Amino acid sequence: MSLVSSYHVVVEWGDCDPAEIVFYPNYFSWCDAAFTRLIETAGWPYARLRGELGLIGLPLAEASMRFLRPSRFRQTLELRSRVEVWAERRFTVLHQAYRDDTLLLEGREVRICARPHPEDPQRIAAVAVPAEFKEAFEA
Amino acid sequence: MSLVSSYHVVVEWGDCDPAEIVFYPNYFSWCDAAFTRLIETAGWPYARLRGELGLIGLPLAEASMRFLRPSRFRQTLELRSRVEVWAERRFTVLHQAYRDDTLLLEGREVRICARPHPEDPQRIAAVAVPAEFKEAFEA
Amino acid sequence: MSLVSSYHVVVEWGDCDPAEIVFYPNYFSWCDAAFTRLIETAGWPYARLRGELGLIGLPLAEASMRFLRPSRFRQTLELRSRVEVWAERRFTVLHQAYRDDTLLLEGREVRICARPHPEDPQRIAAVAVPAEFKEAFEA
Amino acid sequence: MSLVSSYHVVVEWGDCDPAEIVFYPNYFSWCDAAFTRLIETAGWPYARLRGELGLIGLPLAEASMRFLRPSRFRQTLELRSRVEVWAERRFTVLHQAYRDDTLLLEGREVRICARPHPEDPQRIAAVAVPAEFKEAFEA
Repeated sequence: MSLVSSYHVVVEWGDCDPAEIVFYPNYFSWCDAAFTRLIETAGWPYARLRGELGLIGLPLAEASMRFLRPSRFRQTLELRSRVEVWAERRFTVLHQAYRDDTLLLEGREVRICARPHPEDPQRIAAVAVPAEFKEAFEA
Repeated sequence: MSLVSSYHVVVEWGDCDPAEIVFYPNYFSWCDAAFTRLIETAGWPYARLRGELGLIGLPLAEASMRFLRPSRFRQTLELRSRVEVWAERRFTVLHQAYRDDTLLLEGREVRICARPHPEDPQRIAAVAVPAEFKEAFEA
Repeated sequence: MSLVSSYHVVVEWGDCDPAEIVFYPNYFSWCDAAFTRLIETAGWPYARLRGELGLIGLPLAEASMRFLRPSRFRQTLELRSRVEVWAERRFTVLHQAYRDDTLLLEGREVRICARPHPEDPQRIAAVAVPAEFKEAFEA
Repeated sequence: MSLVSSYHVVVEWGDCDPAEIVFYPNYFSWCDAAFTRLIETAGWPYARLRGELGLIGLPLAEASMRFLRPSRFRQTLELRSRVEVWAERRFTVLHQAYRDDTLLLEGREVRICARPHPEDPQRIAAVAVPAEFKEAFEA
């Protein structure tokens, strides 16, 4: 079983657009915050990733989302997040947002393990997913 | 040939995160703004969609992005946008971001043509893509 | 004594800029969300303001902030909010942000009670602060 | 005469809230971007402030705004920015936003010249405004 973390969001006035629903890029911001909870739940906050594994982050290679139901001012949603697929140098995180038992949206982030690029400090290099990081998500 | 619109972005300080690169949800905000240019270039701004076709908007069913190169404070990018696929009740918009001739990212939005739902005003109903709207994108 | 509401914020990655501190406009977004809590704590959510008093909102005439201490990724802050001054057609809300017992910032919003402008629907008209609204903040 | 810089903004869909006007914290983001233009117009982009003067930034001590007219989707505004007051360790920037000849809002930012704090790297220390920086704004 894969570790699942939970992150609750309350929709604020400024999150909504003139259609009176959440402006969709905000959902990606919330997925990013939910991912922070997921790695912390697994015991690997960013500070430890840097300190112990020399990673400068877990940046995105891809992101996608299916929007099933809109959300409005003062509604709440719960993001449940888990790693769905592990590959050698990347992994896919699945975020599912619920209100009560209704699935509102489904987002996926493909993230890589990044070190500074040895030749060009403006770029990053993807490294293999460290085993001790991956194991922490097997609940 | 499909109509292509162009939208230029300058990366601001507040668009970037502590990794000193653009925080990725901002790219989706820029794709949304680029889509506004695309429909205006085709002669169908939102006001006309509402007035002539009774549409309340072109909300998203799906969005996705591949991130190829990061962008930093004060760099610029050009988003080139076009409709890639037309289906009966939805269409896919392709956004490609360039700096000089380098492709930085590729985003896709699947959008629907929305009317108010006849039974539940909190929901929307997808209708067939109007022919006069679709034709305007064939350059 | 004036009613005081409380709103907790966790600083996320995307709230911070390359200086690794909160990008300051986000503090205003959080004050706006804190104001939502304040009027709800007083029993006057926006829906009731519209339904019972015909107000279309409580838009800002002025906003200001003094920044005393920065906040960083994963730090928390508590916004304590209350009405500081009542005038005939406007009122001033004071937001004070704390971490533990340290005051981090102090924000003020001057808000008006708005109805649609009788002659120009693109504008709003300020009306006198309704007595039943004002009374609800006297704890 | 004080140097004046100009920054144009087009209001996007996602900048507006359910009241169909710009959500006010966005104005502060635009003032921050306008300030970037002001120091660049004066020949002092952030990179030069760091490289030649050892400053880590020009963070805010205070910010304030008066909102005179709302702005809506696809309207434009021009921010005209200049230093209004110089003090020993801080300066006040005035941003005035116009559409055609109508003043829409007036924002002020009080900024300090910051170096890393000698004793606590989590804090910053304000230093005297460098003379060569100040002179560059006298047009």
